[in-house]
Amino acid sequence: MITSINSSPLYKIVNPQSIAFFGASNNFSRMGSIMLSSVQALGYEGAIYPIHPSEKTVRGYKAFKSVMDLPEPADLAVMVLPTDIVTDAMRQCGERGIKHAIVVSGGFKESGSAGAELQKELEAVADNYGIRFLGPNCLGVANPHLKLNPTPIPAEGPPGFVGLASQSGSFITQMFNYLYRHGMGFSTALSVGNEANIDIVDCMEYLGVCPHTRVISLYIEGINRGREFIETAKAITPHKPIVALYVGGSEAGKKAGMSHTGSMAGPDEVYDGMFRQCGVMRAKTLSELFDFSFALASLPKPSGKRVIIQTNSGGPGAAAADSIGRAGFELPILSQSTIEKLRKVIPRTASTDNPVDMTFSKSPMDDFYEIPNILLQEENADMLLIYFISPAVFFERVLADSGLSADRMAEESKKFYDTHAHAFFSLVQKYKKPVIGYTYRSLQEPIVRDLLDRGVPIYKDPERAARAMAALVEYHTIKDKVSEKRISGRIIFEEAGSEKRASAL
Amino acid sequence: MITSINSSPLYKIVNPQSIAFFGASNNFSRMGSIMLSSVQALGYEGAIYPIHPSEKTVRGYKAFKSVMDLPEPADLAVMVLPTDIVTDAMRQCGERGIKHAIVVSGGFKESGSAGAELQKELEAVADNYGIRFLGPNCLGVANPHLKLNPTPIPAEGPPGFVGLASQSGSFITQMFNYLYRHGMGFSTALSVGNEANIDIVDCMEYLGVCPHTRVISLYIEGINRGREFIETAKAITPHKPIVALYVGGSEAGKKAGMSHTGSMAGPDEVYDGMFRQCGVMRAKTLSELFDFSFALASLPKPSGKRVIIQTNSGGPGAAAADSIGRAGFELPILSQSTIEKLRKVIPRTASTDNPVDMTFSKSPMDDFYEIPNILLQEENADMLLIYFISPAVFFERVLADSGLSADRMAEESKKFYDTHAHAFFSLVQKYKKPVIGYTYRSLQEPIVRDLLDRGVPIYKDPERAARAMAALVEYHTIKDKVSEKRISGRIIFEEAGSEKRASAL
Repeated sequence: MITSINSSPLYKIVNPQSIAFFGASNNFSRMGSIMLSSVQALGYEGAIYPIHPSEKTVRGYKAFKSVMDLPEPADLAVMVLPTDIVTDAMRQCGERGIKHAIVVSGGFKESGSAGAELQKELEAVADNYGIRFLGPNCLGVANPHLKLNPTPIPAEGPPGFVGLASQSGSFITQMFNYLYRHGMGFSTALSVGNEANIDIVDCMEYLGVCPHTRVISLYIEGINRGREFIETAKAITPHKPIVALYVGGSEAGKKAGMSHTGSMAGPDEVYDGMFRQCGVMRAKTLSELFDFSFALASLPKPSGKRVIIQTNSGGPGAAAADSIGRAGFELPILSQSTIEKLRKVIPRTASTDNPVDMTFSKSPMDDFYEIPNILLQEENADMLLIYFISPAVFFERVLADSGLSADRMAEESKKFYDTHAHAFFSLVQKYKKPVIGYTYRSLQEPIVRDLLDRGVPIYKDPERAARAMAALVEYHTIKDKVSEKRISGRIIFEEAGSEKRASAL
Repeated sequence: MITSINSSPLYKIVNPQSIAFFGASNNFSRMGSIMLSSVQALGYEGAIYPIHPSEKTVRGYKAFKSVMDLPEPADLAVMVLPTDIVTDAMRQCGERGIKHAIVVSGGFKESGSAGAELQKELEAVADNYGIRFLGPNCLGVANPHLKLNPTPIPAEGPPGFVGLASQSGSFITQMFNYLYRHGMGFSTALSVGNEANIDIVDCMEYLGVCPHTRVISLYIEGINRGREFIETAKAITPHKPIVALYVGGSEAGKKAGMSHTGSMAGPDEVYDGMFRQCGVMRAKTLSELFDFSFALASLPKPSGKRVIIQTNSGGPGAAAADSIGRAGFELPILSQSTIEKLRKVIPRTASTDNPVDMTFSKSPMDDFYEIPNILLQEENADMLLIYFISPAVFFERVLADSGLSADRMAEESKKFYDTHAHAFFSLVQKYKKPVIGYTYRSLQEPIVRDLLDRGVPIYKDPERAARAMAALVEYHTIKDKVSEKRISGRIIFEEAGSEKRASAL
């Protein structure tokens, strides 16, 4: 295990101060050009050295005929080259003193035995020069905190807290949009491709000590270093949650993974056992992977499984009760003192059973502050699940009816949304109980979007919320067990500022 | 069973030519006013007669002190009144010859024994005058085809094919937005509330013969007329699919339903047995309810369970293979002739295994036309599942790089999207195989949105697609069984234009 983030082979790959870029040109239809333009679009501030045999400049950067001509040995080389010239480029990098690379090019082990031979040569050259590299057949890295995104799709949204290590390149580049829409963002995303030199275990180890990463998300088709995976995960899970989507457990998933990255998959039971042993939460789908990641990264430890559901509609409340019940949670009866406090603010038609159903919205501030403030003090409950129907649909109609100008309406709306989101969030901060939301409307609507941005997980279906909440409870149960074992062993964690870091593992 | 749509007690409630509206005023904060403003917003063309004790006009309509003053006995009365004056209003409607009503007001059976007494009185008055009514404690109806939406939330999107009967009012009014975003719309939505006079079985019967309804979606907390439910569903499912979300099967869902509409729920097994017997597909969540509804309403009968997955990314392909495999589908090997045809259009790095993985997009027209055209001809496969990553993310970058004006870019983009959506849809129409999509991007992006509008189901996760596909297969299997039994019995279906209608049931 690494002792600090700088000692990871990934450190310079994730945090380069200069990049030699092979395969970008002024022809925008080429993959390399597209990838370089993503780097430009996000505003990477390090040095970029395009390597091109004939162009003088590439996309505005001074180009170099060869890495040998570079003013410095770049921290990182990115290669988007035809398969047959990759090894030679790697050799030149070695000669120039470049120690880290991303090999995007495919056509290696994943494409058959001839490709496997080529990959061996590539590995040998890298070993010879002490070069550490991601790939081949990968998309490398995205580190939004460094404004670095050399992937084919532009980054969206601010940097975040999700550290992804993926055996699919698509899932790093295609997930910017998904994560942003769901209230998250990458701390760092790593695509491992064929794992010739750096594998998913190395990535997990890096993300374990990365200070921006609050949860590690893994997309797995097959793990080659099982023992090391377990040891590394065991060292990480007591202080940072890990969620894994493993698709190789079904016959169909196994075959698909094989032809994708040539990885060897194993049966579900083996992986389930392995994950359980080291405290890794298993997700069954990509939606679950990030649903769980959001909950685990953002919510405090729940003290039990008793949930209050707050709703202003009976049907959504009953649907949530059904999902929550099936996920193994209890819906406790409210204490008499809570009911008495509620009676003063809720409508006459409201129900003080659980779900607490207001039946309609008497006042938005009651819904967003007064009522949850009472419910979060209930001693018989450990978590609050709340249904969001955007008050916008009512509020904006009232405004439209008021005859205000469009500008004044926009101003009033913004004030209204900000005030209510802020009031609600103050409760989330005040009480140390997990607060989770669900809605059937778009997550981009006012208040909900604001709360997502503040780190409140809000899901598109109460069942998704229920499963994420179950993962949260399970993580804290398993974590404590993994942790206890470790404390008696050789592994020690120490606090480093507000971030817990694994040290001396 | 009804012999024609006009003989349903719901016909005039769903298709009124005139409405007496109780409880709307010029004070916009009142529920009745909000509901009337929704009717105005959608542009209902029938006559509206607000009944108000003092106002001369209400929201621009001439108001009447009493229904007795109306120029005609309105087809429908909508009552959004304090509980204690509802029965009197019903009596006046009876005196004026009004035969249909929606009672929105709550405070009846759902609120305890005093309310139950009030409800009995209300029922007796209605019976006395031969009035049929929805509610109390409901939101009544939305019929976008008639531009009729007397619910609190404005309608969104065009009229559609989903006929919803719901024991939750929220699910009719709050689902416009949800359905529109997911590519659907209501044909008619019915909220039954306390089911004092018209119940969910009546609604199902109505929707069974409603020509705009291609699928019936039910939200159920508890069914009171079990035998009639089974008989009615059995008559409908052979020609029109029914999907039901039942939340009363878990302890928590049962309790929540009880306090919501006072309905009696039963154990899961009882409802599962009942649904199976009459060919109703059970959904476990609201998302499933509408996911299944879309598939069942839009897709042709699959001839088997062999699925081809088309993707241009390995990870999304492997994730789909995993989900599809777990849902009980096979991923057949492509025939030699298909592989030969593919070789001519796919990139060198592509995989002709299943998933068919292009690895990248060589040409959008290949992705949207040439390749699916080959795959849909494969005799070893029954269905096509296709991954959509919007080409917009690439196409618009190429355009932006081209230096075109914003107008020209918008024009070029629109042409590009239209052409590709049209080409793809021509294949959906040509081959009689189910074609289903999935994407991790927003469903509102170009091409995907267009295809949704044309009735191609595209889901936000391959697992959701897989479950909807499984429901499709199951429906057609069960349907044939229910159908066989019926043919030997007394029930006959006849074709009426392109719509099958139950007649002489």
